[in-house]
Amino acid sequence: MNDSIAVIELTPTGLRFLDQTRLPGEEVMVATADHRDVLEAIRALRLRGAPLIGITAAYGVTLAARAWCAAHSAPADTAAALTRTQDFLAYLHDVCESFAATRPTAVNLFWALDRMRCLLARPLAPEALTPEALAPESFTPEAFTAALEAEAHAIHDDDAQRCAAIGRHGAALLPRGAGVITHCNSGALATGGEGTAFAVLLEAHRQGRGIHVFADETRPLLQGARLTMWELRRHDIPSTLITDGTAAMLMRAGRVAAAITGADRIAANGDTANKIGTYALAVAARHHGIPFYIAAPLSTVDNRIPTGADIPIEERDPAEITMLAGRRIAPEGVHVYAPAFDVTPAELIAGFVTERGILAPPYGETLAAALS
Amino acid sequence: MNDSIAVIELTPTGLRFLDQTRLPGEEVMVATADHRDVLEAIRALRLRGAPLIGITAAYGVTLAARAWCAAHSAPADTAAALTRTQDFLAYLHDVCESFAATRPTAVNLFWALDRMRCLLARPLAPEALTPEALAPESFTPEAFTAALEAEAHAIHDDDAQRCAAIGRHGAALLPRGAGVITHCNSGALATGGEGTAFAVLLEAHRQGRGIHVFADETRPLLQGARLTMWELRRHDIPSTLITDGTAAMLMRAGRVAAAITGADRIAANGDTANKIGTYALAVAARHHGIPFYIAAPLSTVDNRIPTGADIPIEERDPAEITMLAGRRIAPEGVHVYAPAFDVTPAELIAGFVTERGILAPPYGETLAAALS
Repeated sequence: MNDSIAVIELTPTGLRFLDQTRLPGEEVMVATADHRDVLEAIRALRLRGAPLIGITAAYGVTLAARAWCAAHSAPADTAAALTRTQDFLAYLHDVCESFAATRPTAVNLFWALDRMRCLLARPLAPEALTPEALAPESFTPEAFTAALEAEAHAIHDDDAQRCAAIGRHGAALLPRGAGVITHCNSGALATGGEGTAFAVLLEAHRQGRGIHVFADETRPLLQGARLTMWELRRHDIPSTLITDGTAAMLMRAGRVAAAITGADRIAANGDTANKIGTYALAVAARHHGIPFYIAAPLSTVDNRIPTGADIPIEERDPAEITMLAGRRIAPEGVHVYAPAFDVTPAELIAGFVTERGILAPPYGETLAAALS
Repeated sequence: MNDSIAVIELTPTGLRFLDQTRLPGEEVMVATADHRDVLEAIRALRLRGAPLIGITAAYGVTLAARAWCAAHSAPADTAAALTRTQDFLAYLHDVCESFAATRPTAVNLFWALDRMRCLLARPLAPEALTPEALAPESFTPEAFTAALEAEAHAIHDDDAQRCAAIGRHGAALLPRGAGVITHCNSGALATGGEGTAFAVLLEAHRQGRGIHVFADETRPLLQGARLTMWELRRHDIPSTLITDGTAAMLMRAGRVAAAITGADRIAANGDTANKIGTYALAVAARHHGIPFYIAAPLSTVDNRIPTGADIPIEERDPAEITMLAGRRIAPEGVHVYAPAFDVTPAELIAGFVTERGILAPPYGETLAAALS
């Protein structure tokens, strides 16, 4: 967990999180004990960033488990107690489904939910929970809830450690005095630690490498302008905000030595989905002979998907492009194409910065080896 | 002049123009007889687009001439009358200077002002206006003002005709059923007629070629979202609004057969300055083997400038990136790089669509031949 930015925290009474849609104007902490508020927060991008979505969903499932226990008192009768556990498990599976339906692209969400589901399924399937098979006192909803809570904390803590490792491995990729372009937000506001691509920038800065970060504003939701610039300033990293269309001309002007972003899902061959505009950045980097890196924990790799063509791409509400701060910025009724992500093919990626080091091509082999 | 969109009109009492900063929400016509309002309108982008800036400046100079005449009554004495003309000419030269200082990149501004200045200078320099040399009644401020007004109208009408010719020449470049990407606004709102790149799209649509236009929103000032989408809808051209970072992925998806934009200044070798983000679009087009065209009247060519490296690039107020509709969208105090334009090198340009036809490489030769 990050010690300087309070992004998300499970407390005994509920979940507290920073509403990222209010940044940079206001730092508003939301507190809730209702997992439906967490579902809404993920859908509305109050919490976003592939690793952080997974952490948030794990905490949200924990809130649902707590609330179920509070609403359903334990019976004295053993058979009734196990029926209660079966009801609980069925409900929690539904809750996991509802979190899985919030956003389709970031695989970390499904990975975190799989960890939670696995824990629910581990003893036995609900129908096998009989008095004969099991000591019933170990299988109360309360026991499952405690295990879910511990798992959610572990998912969070694991990600923080992966972020730190990514930063350490990646910093050496950035030449001293380099201008480095990044896109969207991949920092503490996107992860359970100090970030993925952002952790690389932060570690290079802490090592005194004298880098200068150019942050794409990242239309339509301006996570670069609102969030990455906010994090860069908190860490006093020399930085400049640019529009997405400015990156290519900076490369041509010789002011950029590297580009690095996070990832929402990496296919088995290395094709990578990330925030819309990432592919354009990678194409520009290739045109100018500048290395383009992806920094991501290995939990972002989806081995079930052979290539980027199979990654589902979320389409967002056209109003995210036609409206801003309540003001209409395009005519009424225009047709809009609003993908949240694009896919950068593996051949444009100079390397993956992971918690297990830098992976080089051929990614089909190096990703598989790192995962094994 | 365009018959369907009232963009700018000189009337007997002043200048009426559409305030483009209010689009698409409101269609507000501004009326003024004060050329200082016109200077402000160019600086604030109430009127923008390389050809239209030139037309606007010519009308603005005319307003200044009219106002000077109204404020300075003609003396009966011949020598005093010529002194009055000398004062008028000196004032008008200053006015031309003030218009030339509004925006640095679009060469059409300087070209239009040169036509106006040339007309002021044609008889003789002010100091040579002596009773001996000239019949004084031909050299009244009122006579100059009438000539300036006629010249401004001619600049406007000439541009409208060039737009029509550009549309005719360019339409055949677009394959039937093609998806075509454009950037910024190059239509009636940017010119004295139906546009440059936009005229090509419009003519292809009128010919029933079944094109579909993808319009980059064009950060930071969203001329694509606000203005081009507004014009596309007025003409019922099938179209989709995208963020600037989406163009490359559409190309990769095979949905784009051509890209075409206008230009603010073209160097003698064909290097072309246009709205920031144009270069990124050209790079993406090259990466995907898609032709990238520039449509512009030959008045956009600046033969005094050998290459794009010498084109002055306007930097805009950082607030155009950090604020939107009065709301802060980036943290206070961040450093911003806000060039209004970038330069696309000639080697990325598949052809120039001009009023004299399509020019192919080598542009150093073909541009020079077209201009001669």
